[in-house]
Amino acid sequence: MAKKDGGVKLLGFWASPFSRRVEMALKLKGVPYEYLEQDLMNKSPLLLELNPIFKKVPVLVHNGKILPESHLILEYIDQTWKNNPILPQDPYEKAMAFFWAKFVDEQVGPTAFKSVIKAEKGIEVAIEEARELIMFLEKEITGKDLFGGKTIGFLDMVVGSMIPFCLARGWEGMGIDMIPEEKFPELNRWIKKLNEIEIVRECIPNREKQIEHMKNVAKRIKSA
Amino acid sequence: MAKKDGGVKLLGFWASPFSRRVEMALKLKGVPYEYLEQDLMNKSPLLLELNPIFKKVPVLVHNGKILPESHLILEYIDQTWKNNPILPQDPYEKAMAFFWAKFVDEQVGPTAFKSVIKAEKGIEVAIEEARELIMFLEKEITGKDLFGGKTIGFLDMVVGSMIPFCLARGWEGMGIDMIPEEKFPELNRWIKKLNEIEIVRECIPNREKQIEHMKNVAKRIKSA
Repeated sequence: MAKKDGGVKLLGFWASPFSRRVEMALKLKGVPYEYLEQDLMNKSPLLLELNPIFKKVPVLVHNGKILPESHLILEYIDQTWKNNPILPQDPYEKAMAFFWAKFVDEQVGPTAFKSVIKAEKGIEVAIEEARELIMFLEKEITGKDLFGGKTIGFLDMVVGSMIPFCLARGWEGMGIDMIPEEKFPELNRWIKKLNEIEIVRECIPNREKQIEHMKNVAKRIKSA
Repeated sequence: MAKKDGGVKLLGFWASPFSRRVEMALKLKGVPYEYLEQDLMNKSPLLLELNPIFKKVPVLVHNGKILPESHLILEYIDQTWKNNPILPQDPYEKAMAFFWAKFVDEQVGPTAFKSVIKAEKGIEVAIEEARELIMFLEKEITGKDLFGGKTIGFLDMVVGSMIPFCLARGWEGMGIDMIPEEKFPELNRWIKKLNEIEIVRECIPNREKQIEHMKNVAKRIKSA
């Protein structure tokens, strides 16, 4: 599969937060990789072969080993390339990092996007529900430079790729400020810090292009 | 929270596969714990305080540290009490154990239970879809004694608590053999092996009581 021992390939999609976070980790670790952009509306035989169960990006291929699911890929990267660690050593802190990652991807993501777009309970209620969830993260980042401590870590990559650089842009396209500074001062401070990190800037999608993309996704969700 | 250093409490529910697997791990490791049975139809202030986000069992409390989510709890237990390891050391094998666990809980579980009960596409189609997913596990266990190798591991606890000792009993209550031996010989061999393991037998729910419980859950799902 890989061209040589140690060769890494990543199947991804430019606007996917799940792909963006994996590129952040590979760049932070300085791992060279071949990036294979996927068309998610017309899935390639390679993607279907490598991830027959979930049929999703990202998929990491390393020395012929095939690994889907971004949380698992991030931990695998952290254990395989030990420099610039991204996960805490302490078992409890590590478990909590995964806990918040699960919360962001499984609770905040769907609530802040699908339920706002569908607005079945009314858009104001949906926005309020999403902000209530985001408030848990506001509390979690209070008193910390980054979720990972002084340097970027696993949870910065997961929350960063999903919230400011994906969901918030979707809301921006609807004319809504998802994380207003007066309500979420700590998250806004953290987002500014994230924006100063070079590997983050290298990995996040072009803002205008993504807002456009999210509008199209929203249209599909609305009409579904 | 805990009575003394090293004190462990587990908030659980007798019929929950997520709780059952955590008890298996604690028993395998020989960790003494206080078990607090929860009424999920009338959630206790303690459960809501300890798991305000997901409001679910299991929750492990260890030395005042509070940890929800069964996959995270199992890894925490494995890292905290090192005897009788349940997760592979190899980073790729470990990632794949978590991958299959995610597949079982997020794909097989909902498909094999809710979609069969709701039977929106017709019960025969729903059963066929569930069995197609279970076939991935049939392939995965082929040539192995247990998912964990020669001794019980993380994935045996996850798949075991969910499939033979939960979902299959739900189907049994509907008069359906979910994993017929002629279609799934390897899984049936594995289930027999699981049944021979004492800590498994100690942790699985009473069969008749669970079938009754699953019938009640099914009624609630149907009328929802």
